[in-house]
Amino acid sequence: MEKIKKTEKLEKNTAVLLIRKKQFLALKIILAEMNPADIAALMGEMYDEENVDERELTVLYRILPKELAAEAFAYMDSEAQLILINAFSDKELRYVVDELFLDDTVDIIEEMPANIVSKILRNTDAEKRKQINELLSYPEDSAGSVMTTEFVYLHMDYTVERSFDRIRKIGLTKETVYTCYVTENRRLVGIVSLLDMIVSEPGTKIEDIMETNVVSVYTSDDKENAANTLSKYDLAAIPVLDREDRIVGIITFDDAIDVLKEEATEDIEKMAGISPTEKPYFQTSVFQLFKARSSWLLVLMVTAIFTGLIIGSFESQLLVVPALMMFVPMLMDTGGNSGSQSSAMIIRGISLGDIKFSDFSRVVWKEVRVGLACGFFLASVIFAKVIFFDRLGVNIAAVVSLTVLIVVVIAKFVGGALPLIAKKIGVDPAVMASPLITSIVDTLALLIYFFIAINMLEIL
Amino acid sequence: MEKIKKTEKLEKNTAVLLIRKKQFLALKIILAEMNPADIAALMGEMYDEENVDERELTVLYRILPKELAAEAFAYMDSEAQLILINAFSDKELRYVVDELFLDDTVDIIEEMPANIVSKILRNTDAEKRKQINELLSYPEDSAGSVMTTEFVYLHMDYTVERSFDRIRKIGLTKETVYTCYVTENRRLVGIVSLLDMIVSEPGTKIEDIMETNVVSVYTSDDKENAANTLSKYDLAAIPVLDREDRIVGIITFDDAIDVLKEEATEDIEKMAGISPTEKPYFQTSVFQLFKARSSWLLVLMVTAIFTGLIIGSFESQLLVVPALMMFVPMLMDTGGNSGSQSSAMIIRGISLGDIKFSDFSRVVWKEVRVGLACGFFLASVIFAKVIFFDRLGVNIAAVVSLTVLIVVVIAKFVGGALPLIAKKIGVDPAVMASPLITSIVDTLALLIYFFIAINMLEIL
Repeated sequence: MEKIKKTEKLEKNTAVLLIRKKQFLALKIILAEMNPADIAALMGEMYDEENVDERELTVLYRILPKELAAEAFAYMDSEAQLILINAFSDKELRYVVDELFLDDTVDIIEEMPANIVSKILRNTDAEKRKQINELLSYPEDSAGSVMTTEFVYLHMDYTVERSFDRIRKIGLTKETVYTCYVTENRRLVGIVSLLDMIVSEPGTKIEDIMETNVVSVYTSDDKENAANTLSKYDLAAIPVLDREDRIVGIITFDDAIDVLKEEATEDIEKMAGISPTEKPYFQTSVFQLFKARSSWLLVLMVTAIFTGLIIGSFESQLLVVPALMMFVPMLMDTGGNSGSQSSAMIIRGISLGDIKFSDFSRVVWKEVRVGLACGFFLASVIFAKVIFFDRLGVNIAAVVSLTVLIVVVIAKFVGGALPLIAKKIGVDPAVMASPLITSIVDTLALLIYFFIAINMLEIL
Repeated sequence: MEKIKKTEKLEKNTAVLLIRKKQFLALKIILAEMNPADIAALMGEMYDEENVDERELTVLYRILPKELAAEAFAYMDSEAQLILINAFSDKELRYVVDELFLDDTVDIIEEMPANIVSKILRNTDAEKRKQINELLSYPEDSAGSVMTTEFVYLHMDYTVERSFDRIRKIGLTKETVYTCYVTENRRLVGIVSLLDMIVSEPGTKIEDIMETNVVSVYTSDDKENAANTLSKYDLAAIPVLDREDRIVGIITFDDAIDVLKEEATEDIEKMAGISPTEKPYFQTSVFQLFKARSSWLLVLMVTAIFTGLIIGSFESQLLVVPALMMFVPMLMDTGGNSGSQSSAMIIRGISLGDIKFSDFSRVVWKEVRVGLACGFFLASVIFAKVIFFDRLGVNIAAVVSLTVLIVVVIAKFVGGALPLIAKKIGVDPAVMASPLITSIVDTLALLIYFFIAINMLEIL
């Protein structure tokens, strides 16, 4: 799909072959031409699939050119990083940590066991250590926890020329300097983009070209909201303020993208009744997957047992009209599917910031109407089917189709309302999704079904 | 959550009040201080909730300062845009189109009816019209369809100084100039970032500071892959090449974010058995939602009817051991949930590019092991429950728990394999998700259940 011009893409098998045959010089030559992200991916893959052991992984890493090695390190998964840090001499580690972005260093530290953390901090200079500890203190999922404190701030009375000197001196990397932040005793008063500076005369004062209409978030804001805000306003970076409106960091577009991807993955997993697993699929062990999935399966199995008890308690009626049993799976599935359709849309809308609790009545009203439309449609189909295909007569046809109509409407109502209520009471809406709603709706569906049946067919 | 310093945030109700009371000057003063994205959101909301009619919307738009109006226009939903374009004089329209980004113009055109399209093109200069038509010709979902053709290209022998002059002359906006593209008769030979130019001496030759290790995509690549690549390599923009490796456009991070959001939403909707709806929830009419949801509901209802037929065909056995019926819902739900857990993870992995068809055996092997773990766990719980709680004896306990074990393993296998097979044969993996897998697994679950029951309990 993508391609890297003038760059090697090394096939895993080729790499393994070269290692086995001790062709390290050849490897070095190829790797030196590769993109750090690809090197990290290659090494991770080789280790995951046990093509190389810890020792070989370290050897492989050490043949990389120093700077490239440090870049690749940032892209590796925590498993590989742990192995390497263990093998690093203090000197090696100090070099890597110096090269790393602050926010990457923090991400790594968050994944590491205590002894490794202290090894890292031991090899970090005092100033950086202070910043790291600050970042670590922000709650998980907060904007503060994903921001970087590396950004360029300028003063209003700087000239463009002086600002450029400052940028050159600080010499940060691309992501973090597209926008510079104008501060007055650390309070954010405006922003100015590199482009605005380039198109202005060297003598121009920053205050004359700065944009005072600034979108910002607070360190305590949810990181997903921060990322959505960045994307809503098409920003390359969004400034993060503390309670006193002082700018303490920025979130850059690349980190915002990662946040949005993670959150979407989490939502999808929760909707499927999985406790989120953080790491990519292949880096999650069978046991971790078992833990993440079994708990919900158990909960849902138990709820489904109640559905079974309901059927059991209507056993006598079922013996009178055994045909009724035939429609139980259809009613359960149709109810469950209708409900999860609604919940999926509402949960996604909440994540994207399109739907808020204040929209409750609008959502419910819309879902009920959609439910009526879908309900009548399905009910008429099933009515015809029971009469002409099953030849079970008008009574049973009426019971089944009436149940379908009611169940679909209720399912849409529950599916639309529950996520918003969850959000309101501070529960994760995604947890309120398909599997749980399915169980609720299943139970309701059967109760409604038997109630209607008993009354319309006068079974006792 | 977010806040805009020195900027007004106008409450919808306040805005409506000011309109009703004809306080247009006051409105103008407030709107002029607002962020274009917020203005667009406000107007859209007011129209959706019928606080303003088409005429009032146009009036509201016309009181905006010209440039701000054009910016806000780009952020509006197609419904509002259509109304405004209808009301625009050719002069107004020409101004807006001139201010718009090329890719935004194309997005708008794709949403508009033919007569409006021709009105837009009539007010576009020949050069821009040519580029628009080129962009329109790229297949939907291709990288070409989301790229912009507005980017800065330089030559290797340019000096930094000359390059800056060129950037000033072209004077594009932020997103599109962070990176400049070095070309040799339109072929991409390298990239150079604004920062690299700023930190270099004015006399430096571009070829001496350009990065020749360039990641790129082709116009025909899938837009989601392009966005994933941009994010994988932390790029602010990714160059898009034609078959002859000539650079024809770039995809900027902000458009990549939109692509990733859309794709995640689509996956979530498809996993819930909804045909994707493009627009945000509140802009989708009840009828559109009905269409998007009813078709799948019907399909799944029909498949569920087969499950019913299976139960019907085992009626005689059920009459012998009515207790068996009690476990049917539990078996169906447990199977369905186990399957959708696996499919959800695999589908997401495919979307993120973590999982490919070549991983088929690894996935299946992993899922089977997870299935065994979950299966044994659930089977032992249900075994104990049947014995000690239901007091139905060892035989039924054995039948039920053995069925659970087998069903969970099969469900995990199907849930892991189906999405990959779908991908391979070019069907959308997400369509292979929960609802469909549920129906398949439901049917299998019952067949296995009755088979085991008949043989172990020797019912005939």
